[in-house]
Amino acid sequence: MNNFTFSAPTKMIFGKDTEKFVGSEALKYSKKVLVHFGGGSVKKIGVYDKVIKSLKENNIEIFELGGVKPNPRLSLVYEGIDIVKKNDIGLIIAVGGGSVIDSAKAIAVGAKYDGDVWDFYEYTASPKSALPVATVLTIPAAGSESSNSSVITNWDKKLKRGISNDFIIPVFSILNPESTYSLPPYQIACGAADILAHMMERYFVNTKSVDITDRMIEGAIRSHLEFAPKAIKNPTDYDIRAEVMWTGTIAHNGFLDTGRGGDWASHGIEHELSAIYDIAHGAGLAIVFPAWFEFCAKKNPSKIVQFGRRVFDIDSTDEQTIISLTISKLRDFFKELGLALYLDEIDIDETNFKIMAEKAVGKKNGSTIGSYVPLSVSDVVEIYGIASKRS
Amino acid sequence: MNNFTFSAPTKMIFGKDTEKFVGSEALKYSKKVLVHFGGGSVKKIGVYDKVIKSLKENNIEIFELGGVKPNPRLSLVYEGIDIVKKNDIGLIIAVGGGSVIDSAKAIAVGAKYDGDVWDFYEYTASPKSALPVATVLTIPAAGSESSNSSVITNWDKKLKRGISNDFIIPVFSILNPESTYSLPPYQIACGAADILAHMMERYFVNTKSVDITDRMIEGAIRSHLEFAPKAIKNPTDYDIRAEVMWTGTIAHNGFLDTGRGGDWASHGIEHELSAIYDIAHGAGLAIVFPAWFEFCAKKNPSKIVQFGRRVFDIDSTDEQTIISLTISKLRDFFKELGLALYLDEIDIDETNFKIMAEKAVGKKNGSTIGSYVPLSVSDVVEIYGIASKRS
Repeated sequence: MNNFTFSAPTKMIFGKDTEKFVGSEALKYSKKVLVHFGGGSVKKIGVYDKVIKSLKENNIEIFELGGVKPNPRLSLVYEGIDIVKKNDIGLIIAVGGGSVIDSAKAIAVGAKYDGDVWDFYEYTASPKSALPVATVLTIPAAGSESSNSSVITNWDKKLKRGISNDFIIPVFSILNPESTYSLPPYQIACGAADILAHMMERYFVNTKSVDITDRMIEGAIRSHLEFAPKAIKNPTDYDIRAEVMWTGTIAHNGFLDTGRGGDWASHGIEHELSAIYDIAHGAGLAIVFPAWFEFCAKKNPSKIVQFGRRVFDIDSTDEQTIISLTISKLRDFFKELGLALYLDEIDIDETNFKIMAEKAVGKKNGSTIGSYVPLSVSDVVEIYGIASKRS
Repeated sequence: MNNFTFSAPTKMIFGKDTEKFVGSEALKYSKKVLVHFGGGSVKKIGVYDKVIKSLKENNIEIFELGGVKPNPRLSLVYEGIDIVKKNDIGLIIAVGGGSVIDSAKAIAVGAKYDGDVWDFYEYTASPKSALPVATVLTIPAAGSESSNSSVITNWDKKLKRGISNDFIIPVFSILNPESTYSLPPYQIACGAADILAHMMERYFVNTKSVDITDRMIEGAIRSHLEFAPKAIKNPTDYDIRAEVMWTGTIAHNGFLDTGRGGDWASHGIEHELSAIYDIAHGAGLAIVFPAWFEFCAKKNPSKIVQFGRRVFDIDSTDEQTIISLTISKLRDFFKELGLALYLDEIDIDETNFKIMAEKAVGKKNGSTIGSYVPLSVSDVVEIYGIASKRS
């Protein structure tokens, strides 16, 4: 087991009608808040009104900034910083999913900085403080409701960059599973794939003696494999949505990787697909991860075999049988979610395999990505190849 | 799933040589600290010296108060409060196990209060603030290193009382598995029984749709069943001790009972045994919990059957077979730890069964203890009976 530090300071307020606590929690930080959101969906599902109502009941002065888009824009962040600075706002409340939260975090660090907030994302400066951020989560998966990360896109420079800093860990997060009822099935499916990927990235490490976290990840994955497809079939079943929403936080709040780290190659390999073909992150992961399994099983089968035995109860003494069954059961899960399993199903061919692999791995001699099996550029090209069509 | 709030703000610093971080972490809170400890063992194993060295390197003024005993005394707490108030100390560092930490927490709330700290434990007053507390944990099991609880004994009044308050959640905790190497095997065994009990108390609830936490508890228990006996056989194997120490925190930091609560009857039933016969808490739990299983399996078998199937991989369609095997495997585990399985093995007879049951349950008409199966006084007497000797 590796040395580690861990804490999960965000006050998670989970359950039905929990939006009513926004006002009293916010008041602990400021009498003036900026409510940050995306499009009209949070208004349509009624969450926005509940938040505003609770803030008003606590006599909190409300400023509003909507318009966050997926891959949140730096331009809107500037606008938010301007509002916050001019009005002496003391708390930013993100109402939405990962993009809204990431945008709110960027505003929070920018508001306490005299220079250009993009400096932080270019790593030419590092934040010394931030305004507190809170969240009202409406889309599970990204994990940003309890994380210290923020990813922002600078369209002028065509750059997507992330920062990690404990100042931007949300002070509180409201999670009401009911607010996920009206999400389109495809979005739930992509989120479910991302949640599974967050747990598998943590699972596949070579660190010895991490059985306690191995076992908890296996348990969480078993539960997720059962409930994610049910969440698509039963969009308004509270308990099922609650299982998926809380699993989304658990998968990414750092608890399951204490003492072990993670692999994260599949995330990197997928990232390049999304960047070029504009596919949803979860949809890309559903294609990449089984291909990564196929490739890595040849180089380092031990943990994949353990995964098959413990997660899918595959009872065989033959490792090859376990591996084949594990990979096919993994693809069965993504198929049940309604996701494509191969690149050719979404019209992606080999044209950019080499370019994407170079971007994912880096061009320096000897560069690799991932830790369970460190992958070279040619390895990643091979993984894109495995992912391209059913063999 | 029930509504809940959750946070785990303590900065857990886990691993080899982590005592060296005490000074720099302490400095974030104060230039003057009280180091609180028990007897000579923390000095003998070298942990104490490492803590003092790190504090001195950071030019922190050190005050010392040793002498904490199991079931920590109010008298020593008064002494600590006096030292802290007279010297304007800003942080209390507990070096030891649960008793030392609980004593430090009592000093922390008392130091910010003009009245008698025992008021809080009599519930005639409630803390409005506390000095920060930090811990250097040397005995795993109690979970006090990340909890909001403190239990103190007032010998004048013959009362043992507990408080729970977020002000006393430790600000940081240092966990180095090496500091557990020299603990006597019996102490490790009792700690391991307590850790298992903390997870089982959380597992046995009637709350529906808590599969994500069910699965993680099952996983953590499977790991613990494997590594706890190994920890006794291999006292200086770092990785094995690391598994057990981190499981001890996980078992009791609130993460595994999000959305579900717990039963806690077995803890209450054991508590009365310890109070009268002065046996170790873990030793009592090893006797009480299997008897609780036997009793509850007749009234509410569903979760016990699930436990047997998922934790012990018992593959049978007959519920009675699963239940019998589950209970015998549970006793096998405690036996492997070297603990007694029945009260007659430790010379406890039925003399006080009725008195203990009444104290555990309460004497009011209709009083019960526990939630999985609410137990009356006569139920608890029956459980003591099942626990008394091998049938």
